[in-house]
Amino acid sequence: MKIEEAFGVIIKHHREKLSLSQEKLALESGLDRTYISLLERGKRKPTVNSIFSISSTLKMKPHLLIKEVELVLEKDKC
Amino acid sequence: MKIEEAFGVIIKHHREKLSLSQEKLALESGLDRTYISLLERGKRKPTVNSIFSISSTLKMKPHLLIKEVELVLEKDKC
Repeated sequence: MKIEEAFGVIIKHHREKLSLSQEKLALESGLDRTYISLLERGKRKPTVNSIFSISSTLKMKPHLLIKEVELVLEKDKC
Repeated sequence: MKIEEAFGVIIKHHREKLSLSQEKLALESGLDRTYISLLERGKRKPTVNSIFSISSTLKMKPHLLIKEVELVLEKDKC
């Protein structure tokens, strides 16, 4: 699994846990809905700035989001 | 301070702590020396992929690097 795919899995998981639409996540993060859709499908590589703004909307510290990405990648290796 | 500026401060700090040149950090991370120089000066926004590859060269977990970026930004607010 690629890093950006793991990132996509994690943000989709947290977005759905908060019952947020892609539109709402995009709007509150100052990003495009299309970009969120591409990120969730692992088709874009988020910048550190997108990571911070999405984390804020998901009410998470950015480093905890990244830690979950690490865990998904580690599990994927097994 | 911008997020990318805080990121630049942190990677420069860790690179120098390991006595690594920008060239060596770039080479081992699969990135250009110019890109590392721009990142350290906060002139580029790193992707999640660059964050992971640079962290690996700096022998750090990516989320711990991001945690330090958060701390720099929090201190900067005071």
